[in-house]
Amino acid sequence: MSKRKTYRLGDFVAQFGGELIGSPKVRISQVAALESARSTDIAFVSQDRYRSRLDRCRAGAVILGPDARESTRLPRIVCTNPYSYFAKVSALLNPPVAARPGIARNAAVDKSARIAKSAEVGVHAVIAKGAHIGEKAVIGAGCYVGEGTRIGAETRLYANVTIYHGCTIGKRCLLHSGVVVGADGFGIARDEGGWQKIPQIGGVVIGDDVEIGANTTIDRGTLDDTVIEDGVKLDNQIQIAHNVRIGAHTAIAACAGIAGSAQIGRNCALGGASMIRGHVTIADNVTVSPGTLIMKSLERPGTYTGIYPFSSHQDWLRNATHLRQLDKLAKRIRALERILDKAERNPS
Amino acid sequence: MSKRKTYRLGDFVAQFGGELIGSPKVRISQVAALESARSTDIAFVSQDRYRSRLDRCRAGAVILGPDARESTRLPRIVCTNPYSYFAKVSALLNPPVAARPGIARNAAVDKSARIAKSAEVGVHAVIAKGAHIGEKAVIGAGCYVGEGTRIGAETRLYANVTIYHGCTIGKRCLLHSGVVVGADGFGIARDEGGWQKIPQIGGVVIGDDVEIGANTTIDRGTLDDTVIEDGVKLDNQIQIAHNVRIGAHTAIAACAGIAGSAQIGRNCALGGASMIRGHVTIADNVTVSPGTLIMKSLERPGTYTGIYPFSSHQDWLRNATHLRQLDKLAKRIRALERILDKAERNPS
Amino acid sequence: MSKRKTYRLGDFVAQFGGELIGSPKVRISQVAALESARSTDIAFVSQDRYRSRLDRCRAGAVILGPDARESTRLPRIVCTNPYSYFAKVSALLNPPVAARPGIARNAAVDKSARIAKSAEVGVHAVIAKGAHIGEKAVIGAGCYVGEGTRIGAETRLYANVTIYHGCTIGKRCLLHSGVVVGADGFGIARDEGGWQKIPQIGGVVIGDDVEIGANTTIDRGTLDDTVIEDGVKLDNQIQIAHNVRIGAHTAIAACAGIAGSAQIGRNCALGGASMIRGHVTIADNVTVSPGTLIMKSLERPGTYTGIYPFSSHQDWLRNATHLRQLDKLAKRIRALERILDKAERNPS
Repeated sequence: MSKRKTYRLGDFVAQFGGELIGSPKVRISQVAALESARSTDIAFVSQDRYRSRLDRCRAGAVILGPDARESTRLPRIVCTNPYSYFAKVSALLNPPVAARPGIARNAAVDKSARIAKSAEVGVHAVIAKGAHIGEKAVIGAGCYVGEGTRIGAETRLYANVTIYHGCTIGKRCLLHSGVVVGADGFGIARDEGGWQKIPQIGGVVIGDDVEIGANTTIDRGTLDDTVIEDGVKLDNQIQIAHNVRIGAHTAIAACAGIAGSAQIGRNCALGGASMIRGHVTIADNVTVSPGTLIMKSLERPGTYTGIYPFSSHQDWLRNATHLRQLDKLAKRIRALERILDKAERNPS
Repeated sequence: MSKRKTYRLGDFVAQFGGELIGSPKVRISQVAALESARSTDIAFVSQDRYRSRLDRCRAGAVILGPDARESTRLPRIVCTNPYSYFAKVSALLNPPVAARPGIARNAAVDKSARIAKSAEVGVHAVIAKGAHIGEKAVIGAGCYVGEGTRIGAETRLYANVTIYHGCTIGKRCLLHSGVVVGADGFGIARDEGGWQKIPQIGGVVIGDDVEIGANTTIDRGTLDDTVIEDGVKLDNQIQIAHNVRIGAHTAIAACAGIAGSAQIGRNCALGGASMIRGHVTIADNVTVSPGTLIMKSLERPGTYTGIYPFSSHQDWLRNATHLRQLDKLAKRIRALERILDKAERNPS
Repeated sequence: MSKRKTYRLGDFVAQFGGELIGSPKVRISQVAALESARSTDIAFVSQDRYRSRLDRCRAGAVILGPDARESTRLPRIVCTNPYSYFAKVSALLNPPVAARPGIARNAAVDKSARIAKSAEVGVHAVIAKGAHIGEKAVIGAGCYVGEGTRIGAETRLYANVTIYHGCTIGKRCLLHSGVVVGADGFGIARDEGGWQKIPQIGGVVIGDDVEIGANTTIDRGTLDDTVIEDGVKLDNQIQIAHNVRIGAHTAIAACAGIAGSAQIGRNCALGGASMIRGHVTIADNVTVSPGTLIMKSLERPGTYTGIYPFSSHQDWLRNATHLRQLDKLAKRIRALERILDKAERNPS
């Protein structure tokens, strides 16, 4: 939208390392896909199967791994992790929009709230009593920041984010639109003929460098806090229930759900639409496949899967019906084995 | 945030019953977990496995069941349902914030809307033509209440809730942020080369004492209404399609989905991420396990489950492949049985 | 709410075809269900199993197929697709509320934004720099339209919709409350001890006549755009990840998720809570059953299913345990076959 800053290949190598093959003076203004890159763009190849696309690539330069070093004559940066290198180059070329210090005229900021001078509070945002907005933080249009809630420095809430009272968000976090942090956990007790609500008096504590995708919800704790540790990355439409703890640098794909009091380790990767039962504990470095329901604690790192393999509907009908008879099938096998076993021991 | 009211143990027993062992004069100001409770807190034990934690507990008092009566020397209240008792004590100690009567200066209230004198309408809220807000109701910041919609007495909409036109919400309900009530049901008819939208002219009727979690959506009916009966408790990110009816006091965990025209009974419990097919009928007192897809009507109470059991990814690969061959496996068993059966009848 | 326009049966037939049996002068003011229809309503029967309800029907007229032609003596319209015919009649009787041209006094419209004279911008809406709102478009209360985003003619955003910068929405679209279009895709690269965010610099391009249900999220592309083609119909709480393409006239039911870079064909139907893995390609005219996870590309039209069939919890426990032993069961069958095969070849 504004004039884009350009860099030279030499700038990248000076800043991020890697081996440069070609002129350090090549000017790059943007990242692009291999197929659509132009002479001022830099592209990347991280997987062998994309290497063939290099032939027709018109990028100004390419980032690639040692194996692909000679796959092109384009100016190139050879490095061990092309994807991460590309991410860094893109982050340099596409820096986040800086906060525009000040409070929009029609925002509603309680007089007891503390807003850093360098922070931006957008149109129609609401900052409640005693809330605190850190340096260079951005509160988007229409956001609600509840009583006593603290937003760390350089954290950005996109438009229409809601944070309830008594929550803490760390530094350099990104919260996308529709996120709700701090709504009541689902705490109800069976009562005569109905349910008694259990007040949710814990809060939510979110560490630094956490990203939270659109329409994701993180409930406040019942008595103690729900905790999201540093560097956690959450995709869209994830549900995190009360008193969950997510360990540092764990990444969770869209539509996953973590039920109450589950404890997820560090550096885990949970696939899209995976579901974690309440009260279970997941070790560090666990990967859960998409669509998998984890019903008990996982004490060891590794990849865990529970996906019903799809097939044509006809095949599914034919096969799935036996699932309700599996125990009988197993017994019939056992019976056959017994007969043959007996026959062998007593040959007629 | 404000000064907390304290109670004596004797007050609890006078109000909620139970047997008090210890001084009725012990002062309690808050509920807490067994591990973190201090001398002014009351904790509870509802399950045997937590009983061992009583040894180190420093609470001012504990709520427990008859079996655990002698498990501690702390002042204690013995009752049949400690969890529900605890819920009541917590509700007493943590009453909902009362409505602050009045309409925020920058709310947008149509002049034909009726707002009870004791109701609170928050900053940037929008109340459309002919809407009605009941006594002591709270409409949070940024909420939208559509044309002709009625919000019952003492109902609270947290910030950024959206209710379309022509809906009715009962008394003492809680709607959390991001909830959308009354959006169009997904009604489309196949047409030449595309889809014809079917106008959704029904409404949504929600009973009394209903709680609706963050980002849950409840669609309006196609012709007749979508109905949520009294005392229903809905967790976050639940989808309720057009013309569904949810029976009184049914509780539904997060990420569940109820497809169009499904009829759910009273006192049911649907697990997280469970899915109910359209047009099915579920009897009263049915429990559906998490992640289970119910594809046909359930006429009897009971617990129903359909979860693919997870395993290590390697084990899953090895085992899951046979699911597409189950019918063949079953036929091979049948063939073996025939051979042996024949052999037995005609021994060689 | 306002006075309803009435039509005569003859008007319907003149406009939509079909054979009229009965007087063309019968006045109809609304559509209704067979059971509740009154003399000024028109009802429809599209499936045999509902035909018996015609006996007690008090509608002013009924729409039905050739087979049901003589099932009632009520005035009736006979046509080949009663459901679609009904949809058209209902659309005529229930036209969308027209835009009320003008910008609400307390909307926040950047002076560089272009708003068509005939467009409506609601209370507390925010229209950012350089955005463009087309003729007769409606931007609901509390909506956010980001920098440079274009909203096509006659498109309606209900209250509290969020569209990020640089997105394009076509003509005659409907976006329901809580929809988020253009949030960052979930792009992160493993880095020393954490994750490096990949800036999402693509946009979202949505065609004409697209409907998007409440709280559905559509992420912007990483480098190129995420694309929703003309006539796509999306239900509530669907997640569409970065760089997905959804082919024209595909319909997707609630709670479905489409992972990054998946390409969905035209005229597909994806069931509720179905999940499509990243990078797969789905052919035109594919139907995916509810709750099914598609893990690889589908090259042929057809219906695909992968649902774990539910049963009583006891039965499930008994049967599901064998899933972790399926490979062993298959081997035991093979062993039995070998024994019998050998026995047959070498009869003792």
